[in-house]
Formats: sequence, C-alpha cells, structure tokens
Amino acid sequence: MTRSGHVVLVLGGARSGKSSFSERMIISAGGERHYIATGQAFDDEMVDRIARHQADRGEGWITHEIPLDLPRHLATIDAAGRSVLVDCLTLWVSNLMMSERDLKAESEALIAQLSSCASHVVLVSNEVGLGIVPENRMAREFRDHAGRLHQKIAAIADKAYFVAAGLPLKLKG
Amino acid sequence: MTRSGHVVLVLGGARSGKSSFSERMIISAGGERHYIATGQAFDDEMVDRIARHQADRGEGWITHEIPLDLPRHLATIDAAGRSVLVDCLTLWVSNLMMSERDLKAESEALIAQLSSCASHVVLVSNEVGLGIVPENRMAREFRDHAGRLHQKIAAIADKAYFVAAGLPLKLKG
Amino acid sequence: MTRSGHVVLVLGGARSGKSSFSERMIISAGGERHYIATGQAFDDEMVDRIARHQADRGEGWITHEIPLDLPRHLATIDAAGRSVLVDCLTLWVSNLMMSERDLKAESEALIAQLSSCASHVVLVSNEVGLGIVPENRMAREFRDHAGRLHQKIAAIADKAYFVAAGLPLKLKG
Repeated sequence: MTRSGHVVLVLGGARSGKSSFSERMIISAGGERHYIATGQAFDDEMVDRIARHQADRGEGWITHEIPLDLPRHLATIDAAGRSVLVDCLTLWVSNLMMSERDLKAESEALIAQLSSCASHVVLVSNEVGLGIVPENRMAREFRDHAGRLHQKIAAIADKAYFVAAGLPLKLKG
Repeated sequence: MTRSGHVVLVLGGARSGKSSFSERMIISAGGERHYIATGQAFDDEMVDRIARHQADRGEGWITHEIPLDLPRHLATIDAAGRSVLVDCLTLWVSNLMMSERDLKAESEALIAQLSSCASHVVLVSNEVGLGIVPENRMAREFRDHAGRLHQKIAAIADKAYFVAAGLPLKLKG
Repeated sequence: MTRSGHVVLVLGGARSGKSSFSERMIISAGGERHYIATGQAFDDEMVDRIARHQADRGEGWITHEIPLDLPRHLATIDAAGRSVLVDCLTLWVSNLMMSERDLKAESEALIAQLSSCASHVVLVSNEVGLGIVPENRMAREFRDHAGRLHQKIAAIADKAYFVAAGLPLKLKG
C-alpha cells in the first residue's frame, strides 16, 4: 500500500453524533472540504434527515450526491490537500443491494481506491449488528455486507473510532 | 455553566449491567441516595423487571417514581451531599412520546437543570441505535430522540461511560 | 476460584470480526487447538455460515459440535496446554431456550467449569442488546438471558473485549 493520503473509519449507531464528530475532524484537518452524500431522498422523512444534516454541517463544503458510484467518484476528486467526508457507507451498501450491483466487486474497488488515495478521507458508517438477529433475510444480508466492509476498511485505515453520544472510543491509530 | 454537583452519563444495552455499575458509583460517592425510576408497571413483565431491579439495588435508597416530570423533580430534590440515580432516560423519552409532551422543551429543561445542579447525578440510558433501522416510524423517532438527548447530556457531563457485560469503557472524564 | 487456566470473553456484533480476533488469540497462545461450535445447521443459510466460518478458520483445529451440553463437554476436554474456542454463547443460549433447558442451572454449570478450568478458554458471543426493544417476548427473554450470562462470565474472566470492525476495545484485563 503506497498512500500519501489518510483514511479514517468512524462507526456509530443512529444519532450517535458520528457525522458531527467526522465533520469536526475534516474541518480541523484543513484543506478543501468535500462531502459525499450517499443517501437518496425517496420520501419526506429522508428529505428531512438530509436537510437537517446539511444545516448541521454549515457552509464551506462541496457536496456530491453519489448513491452508487462511490469508488469511481472518490478517484475523480482525489487530490492532495483535499478532505473528503463519505456519509455514509451503510446507505451506499443498501443502495448497491437495491440496484443489484456486485457487492464484492464494489467493495474491492473501494478498498483499492482507499489504499492509494492522496486525500484525507473520513468514512462514516452505521454499526447495525448489535441488535437481535433480524427476521428479514434481506436485513441479515445487509448487516453481513456492512460488517464485512467495515472490517476490510478498518484493516487498511490509519484510524478507526466507535462513537457513542458524540464521544469517540479509539479502535485504531 | 456553574455547577457544584457532578453529572455522569451511563450508556449500555439491555442487561448490560449499566444499572448495577451506576448503583456502585452512587454508593461509593457516599451521601443520601435517591433513586428516580422512570419506568411504569403497565404489565406483568414490567412489574417483574421493576421488582428485580429493586431487589438487586438493596436497602438504603429513597425511591421516586417519576415517569414524566424528571427535570422538575430533579430540581425539587437537588442538594449538595445528595446522590441521585436516574434509571432510565430511554423510558422517560418513551413516556414523553406516549403522552405527546414537547420532547425538545423537556430535554432543554433537563439540560438546564443538570447544568446547575448541586447533587451528584448519574443518568442511565439504553443505547438503542446499533441495530437494523426499525421498520416502525415511531421506533425510528424514538431512537432519534434518545440519541440526540444522549449527545446533549454527554456534552455537559463530567463523565460518560459505555457499559458492556457489566464493564465500563470510558467515553469522557 | 482456583484456576490454572485462562478465561477470555469476546463480545461483538454480527460480522464484527469477533471470531477471527478470537482465533488469532488462540493461535498465538499456542497448544492444542479445540473449536466448540454451538451452531446447528437447520437450513441452507446456516449451512453456508458454518462452512464459511470453517474455511476462514483454516487447518489445525479439533472441532466439536456441541449445541447444548457445553459445560459438560468443556469439562471433558479440559487440560493444561489446550486452547478452546467456544463460538458462540448466544447460539448456545438460543439452543437451550428452544430445548426448554433450565437456563439458570446451565449458566451456573458453565461458570463453575470456567472457574476451575486448566485450559485457555476463549468464549465468543454476540452483543444483542443495543437495538430497539424487540416486539417479540421470546426475543426479549433471549437478550435478557444472553446479557446476564455475559455479565457473569465477564465477572470471572481474566480478559474481556468488545470488538467492532475486527478491532478490539479492552473491557477488562
């Protein structure tokens, strides 16, 4: 792995403050700030959530709405002196599943991109595997895909955190 | 914030030992011990859970059953030399939602009270955001409210812990 | 407790990398490696999961399929110089519930065995209490049983970890 950039994984639950924590990291890193939103506004609830996140984030971000082509888009904007926040991986995994993309190939493409990036990349994701086994098979597959992706990224990341109540526990780095 | 008291947030899953951990903290802090139970015994299962918690806790506690008016009641019993265990915030949030109270106003009132308290206050709460997104909209709103409240309290707390298997991970302090 | 062996509890979510982390601990401990699988292959999905775990684990393990009689079987194979991986406790609890065994007696038998063991025992388990309260009563009882068992084992363990994305947070030791 020859990488001049920096890769950080931030895991946490719903409303754990993982996005705000990640935004603060990006802001203190300095440089041009990019925000990759993987969420899609299918319904009013999602529109609300996206608007609220955007308001929390404030000014000074270049926003990209990338529901599916995350590895390719990261490559396109990759450059030294840039900071990129990917929010979030679990929505990306969910979008890939709904579009019947090849999860294994996509996740390998993401790992390859992160392994050689020049930017400071912070990837936010929901830890979803700490409840009762879901009755729905699709949901079980989803948490398997998400969990495997987290392990792969954590293995190559410079830093990894588990966030609860807005406060980080350091997993790596 | 001018506070002579001490505020601790204890997060954990169901049966994670978060209540016992919090009780031990209160006992070792010394002083008059108050226990605020937010749970309501609607059915036999809940009656059992409450009785079991009470038996685990043992003697020496002044118990208050406060399903809704938590900020006001905390103010009423607030005094230097007193220790107060609030068990738990998630049930309080759930009671507020069922009674259609204004969650934002209640949570601001709690933060205001905690910011100026004289007692040693330990607040126990369930982390509920680490499973699959619930299909039920009410459940999604509930975990959003709980998560936001945890972040607000953690921001002003002196200490915060994440408890698993009865053992604490320090988030703050 | 007079124990010449070593007891480790490894908690984590689904696909958190807890099994791989535990396998690496057993391998670095050296000695004869035993693997106790509590899972039962009821359906194709479970057959797949078990096969995948076995492939990940590689050669050099003596495998025991023990869905129910865990404390007895641990006693049978207990010996200095042996390392035993129990994967996982949550499936054992689930099997005990489905077979209507006495959970309290079984969990006491396990604690008694672990308190006097000569082997290096690593017990893997799913933390399942960090999502929304399940609507299903059986699921609520399951997470209560699992949570209480985790607390009891953690109390007597030499070490305990919470694993996320393949990375450990130290709870004890």
